[in-house]
Amino acid sequence: MELPQFEYLIKKLDEKKGEIDKAIMDYIRKRYEGELYELVEYAVGDGKRLRGVVLLLISEALEGDQKKALRLAISAELGHSASLVHDDIIDRSVERRRKPTLWKRYGLEKAVILPHILISESLDIARREGEEFFKVGLETWSKASMGEYLDIIAEDRNNWPGMDYRRLIALKSGSLFEGAAEIGALVSGKKEYIQDAKKYGMALGIAYQFSDDLVGYINSNEEGGGSQNLFSYYIKNEIGDSKDISLIMGFFMFNIMKEFEIIRKSKLFEKSEYLKLFPIFSILEIMKENASMYDILKNVIENYF
Amino acid sequence: MELPQFEYLIKKLDEKKGEIDKAIMDYIRKRYEGELYELVEYAVGDGKRLRGVVLLLISEALEGDQKKALRLAISAELGHSASLVHDDIIDRSVERRRKPTLWKRYGLEKAVILPHILISESLDIARREGEEFFKVGLETWSKASMGEYLDIIAEDRNNWPGMDYRRLIALKSGSLFEGAAEIGALVSGKKEYIQDAKKYGMALGIAYQFSDDLVGYINSNEEGGGSQNLFSYYIKNEIGDSKDISLIMGFFMFNIMKEFEIIRKSKLFEKSEYLKLFPIFSILEIMKENASMYDILKNVIENYF
Repeated sequence: MELPQFEYLIKKLDEKKGEIDKAIMDYIRKRYEGELYELVEYAVGDGKRLRGVVLLLISEALEGDQKKALRLAISAELGHSASLVHDDIIDRSVERRRKPTLWKRYGLEKAVILPHILISESLDIARREGEEFFKVGLETWSKASMGEYLDIIAEDRNNWPGMDYRRLIALKSGSLFEGAAEIGALVSGKKEYIQDAKKYGMALGIAYQFSDDLVGYINSNEEGGGSQNLFSYYIKNEIGDSKDISLIMGFFMFNIMKEFEIIRKSKLFEKSEYLKLFPIFSILEIMKENASMYDILKNVIENYF
Repeated sequence: MELPQFEYLIKKLDEKKGEIDKAIMDYIRKRYEGELYELVEYAVGDGKRLRGVVLLLISEALEGDQKKALRLAISAELGHSASLVHDDIIDRSVERRRKPTLWKRYGLEKAVILPHILISESLDIARREGEEFFKVGLETWSKASMGEYLDIIAEDRNNWPGMDYRRLIALKSGSLFEGAAEIGALVSGKKEYIQDAKKYGMALGIAYQFSDDLVGYINSNEEGGGSQNLFSYYIKNEIGDSKDISLIMGFFMFNIMKEFEIIRKSKLFEKSEYLKLFPIFSILEIMKENASMYDILKNVIENYF
């Protein structure tokens, strides 16, 4: 059962996701053909489009040009999809969204090269919209790559003591939401919102990855990658080996609330009801993977509003 | 024994290569640290720097700012080095320049992510020099990625009949020389040379890859990748299975001369003695891998000047 506050949000998110899905499919159908189209479609044809949705919601709240925002949402999602193709090689994952991963389906060779085609396209879309968009796209990509590198480093337990978990997920996951949010604000031309948008996106991305690692930790998911490993190290340092749900919940709330404070203080929080609810909603979606965590969190949130 | 005409050129090339080597090492030492520095150094610490050298020679011939050109040569070489890391994964090569390839030495995971760090850095260097430079960098990367994709497609003999060998090597190898040459001209601000520089670079890159595939074909090199496979198909269609050296030489001269005609017609050809000799010199360097081809070609060239 969904929280009643979320009804309108869900409708809105579906609408935005639908716009992005359609725009992406139209774009790649014009741009690629033959087997390359098939590969691109396999890589980008699916997904929650969260980064694109954040971009659209922010630009809409700030009354930016929605057509321009949609083109840039394509750029954001192409970049994100590309990163997943390489992630899956790195993590040796064989399945994503109930389908074989791209390298598993089409071979390592094509999976190594396809993200180059997608990211250069993504940056070119951004470039055509203006130099400031390209700059954000490039920064985002650079940060996310560094985050992915740290993620690999965190696979080795010998490296854990010197590492900063929050920095890792800020680079690996926060950066993509930060970039999407910044672009959403840039589209509107309202420069006074840019710093707030970046903070909103970064905090959202961190909260998102934090929740994902937490659920992976509780469910003992073995494919969580480096950040989940480092998370385990981090949480064990704080609360020991305990899998007591209220202890974990306390740890979770303590950390997640720091990010929500940042989101709350952002000028965007008051700008739109959607932007207010979206972060909480996203976290709850992740928590659905663990029933007891979900129930507790839902309770907390009902009192929070 | 070197041709006497090449003496000054070789001195010049060594000088330019030395400048680029030093600039790259200074740059990465400031930019990276720890194990990431080690990885970057492993990937970029070696190389002939041909693309960077072309960039410097052209900008020098057109009296462009040499400091700016050197920064952009770093950008070109970082991008090129990054592409080699992924090439080696794709071709499953275990050795490059007498060292283990990066994926072999540091593992697949780091070899998948490192090029993202290098290419985003390469594009950011270009961006800092001006919008026109990152535009060229981005186009180059996009073309080279498409070329690499075609190279993978050409691994499968079923695809050969419908493929265009020259288009493949134009994208895969020509693009990087074309981009370097264009940037060299852009640095000078002399817009009237840009189209000629692009043609010069593209023809040079095609001649270079053509020669490389030819030598691989004659020496029956098994690690030549898709373009060499397609080359074999192409040459066999023209002259059959014969390994008769004069037949092959004829085929080679016929094709390579088309590229040299383009180079000859370029305004750059008359602009500097170095730019005149460099293409011939590069091809001869490759031909050293096959003694009989080298001798024949040297003879032809001595009469050519």
